[in-house]
Amino acid sequence: MSVLSCPLPIPTDEFVVLGHGSGGRLSARMMEETFLPAFRNTALERGDDQGVFEAPAGRIAMSTDSYVVKPLFFPGGNIGELAVYGTVNDLAVGGATPKYLSAGFILEEGLSLDTLRQIVDSMSHAARRCGVEIITGDTKVVEKGSGDQIYINTAGVGFIPSGINYSAANVRPGDKIILSGSLGDHGITILAQREGMELGGDLHSDSAPLHLLCAAAMAAAPTLHAMRDLTRGGLSSALNEIAQKSGNGMEIDQRAIPVSEVVRGACELFGLDPLYVANEGKMIAFVPAAEAAASVAAMRNIETGSEARIIGEVTEKHPRMVTMRTSLGTERIVDMLAQDQLPRIC
Amino acid sequence: MSVLSCPLPIPTDEFVVLGHGSGGRLSARMMEETFLPAFRNTALERGDDQGVFEAPAGRIAMSTDSYVVKPLFFPGGNIGELAVYGTVNDLAVGGATPKYLSAGFILEEGLSLDTLRQIVDSMSHAARRCGVEIITGDTKVVEKGSGDQIYINTAGVGFIPSGINYSAANVRPGDKIILSGSLGDHGITILAQREGMELGGDLHSDSAPLHLLCAAAMAAAPTLHAMRDLTRGGLSSALNEIAQKSGNGMEIDQRAIPVSEVVRGACELFGLDPLYVANEGKMIAFVPAAEAAASVAAMRNIETGSEARIIGEVTEKHPRMVTMRTSLGTERIVDMLAQDQLPRIC
Repeated sequence: MSVLSCPLPIPTDEFVVLGHGSGGRLSARMMEETFLPAFRNTALERGDDQGVFEAPAGRIAMSTDSYVVKPLFFPGGNIGELAVYGTVNDLAVGGATPKYLSAGFILEEGLSLDTLRQIVDSMSHAARRCGVEIITGDTKVVEKGSGDQIYINTAGVGFIPSGINYSAANVRPGDKIILSGSLGDHGITILAQREGMELGGDLHSDSAPLHLLCAAAMAAAPTLHAMRDLTRGGLSSALNEIAQKSGNGMEIDQRAIPVSEVVRGACELFGLDPLYVANEGKMIAFVPAAEAAASVAAMRNIETGSEARIIGEVTEKHPRMVTMRTSLGTERIVDMLAQDQLPRIC
Repeated sequence: MSVLSCPLPIPTDEFVVLGHGSGGRLSARMMEETFLPAFRNTALERGDDQGVFEAPAGRIAMSTDSYVVKPLFFPGGNIGELAVYGTVNDLAVGGATPKYLSAGFILEEGLSLDTLRQIVDSMSHAARRCGVEIITGDTKVVEKGSGDQIYINTAGVGFIPSGINYSAANVRPGDKIILSGSLGDHGITILAQREGMELGGDLHSDSAPLHLLCAAAMAAAPTLHAMRDLTRGGLSSALNEIAQKSGNGMEIDQRAIPVSEVVRGACELFGLDPLYVANEGKMIAFVPAAEAAASVAAMRNIETGSEARIIGEVTEKHPRMVTMRTSLGTERIVDMLAQDQLPRIC
């Protein structure tokens, strides 16, 4: 194609064209007709190049993720919802109250505007559910074949209550490891969808916001050390990362780790290990033993934590390593995989 | 391709593979070997899912942009530098002191790791120049053919000094419109590069950070109303947007608007209008008449503002419209284009 664009014959009110990313009238119309009605708030309505918010003095958490999940829609969620919950969760596990998001869209020429609107409406709904506002954004359009329908980046900020300072580095020997629920639902849902397989059961992504669950764990455990949500790489990546950062070992018990029948069956079928499969609504918390029972009880009161339980503890015995007592009673090392079992999972 | 990834024969220390976006060992190695050495700071080194910073009580600006410029490297800059300056500039024109950035990378399978490192080093250099830190990030990898080498999103936050409240909506009739320098250098550089044309002269992108220039304008004009950087859609889009938001008219004088010989020549050749061509290091400020001369003088003391001048003023006469007195003495409407003259300019 020529770098000089010509008027396109395709209808600009049905499909994304390069002009929607131009900063001209088509961009302005997309803002007026698609983004503003969904995200409406004072900061966005000002129409300036930056959103502005008022913050108290203190510590602020900032996080970002790009979302490239394929397919865009799957049982239990879609890319838009994921783009809000994922970033909200990264803030929440840091002890922050998620407050404001930015949203950056990279659209492929030819994307249906109906699809875009569905995704944007999902983001709006997800944001309301989390009590966050999308206060600034950007849209770029790339030529057909240079993208894959839609990629979304969100960045978020959240306020950290005074006295809270969670970090992987703070995890200590003796800490109990609490897992919020069953593993692998998101990854296996995406896999089944891509392969066009009907796995039965009520298989759907666990895509969910964790801000209330994190707040419950924090309130019940005044000396909580760290939390982490389990996304790409699953439980094993999160545990290995924290083992590395804290210099401690992790011991978990396979019998304590919930995995649904359908996920377990699919993992056997595909030769996958649920410990490595992605989740989008699960987290782990590292809590001193004395506060662990209260934390589990508090988490179980929250919908996304109804299956919360202690799955192991932190040890000095084998620094920087994760080991698991299997359901057969043997012990094995849970290593970090070199690469993912499933690309483009989120 | 199968959704189940197999060990790839291509060397993972020379090229990006899907596993680099997996959250596993390859992701960790890319973090250790590429991102951490370039961006090194306390927040990033903690290795948590969020960067944390301390903020005073007050107003905070947040902005985001995705960068999809093609080609990745061009005379005067590259996508990495642009990704830092662009977001810094969006904060600076809001009166904020840019402080912290997030960086989200969408890499296409097969990208050379050398290219990635060059881009990341450029981001690191650009961040130091602006006094900002990149405190959190994310990397996703998409299959070959689902991206175009590299897309970068940055989001940024900056602190707004107390008493500062700039917005397009604040612009008032009688305000002088100050332009910081000549138009069209970035857009014409990209165009020439894509077409493989040698236009002569010292043609290069004006890619530059504007935080010092904005600070100078602010210091010299205590009642400055708004600033805006001129990117996609050029001067015309910025003026039209502000005319819309403020409900006022804008009158500019073509003879006052600097355009270099080589840009003017290229625009004639390609049938482009410099008013619509993208810039990456230019801004406009709206300043009450009494403070305009002092503002211009202060801006000229800053390298990026050495050609600053008054190019027109805000009027009640034709609300929401931009008009220009041409070099022939006639008057014409400067409309907003429906779509861009040049896609993927930033």
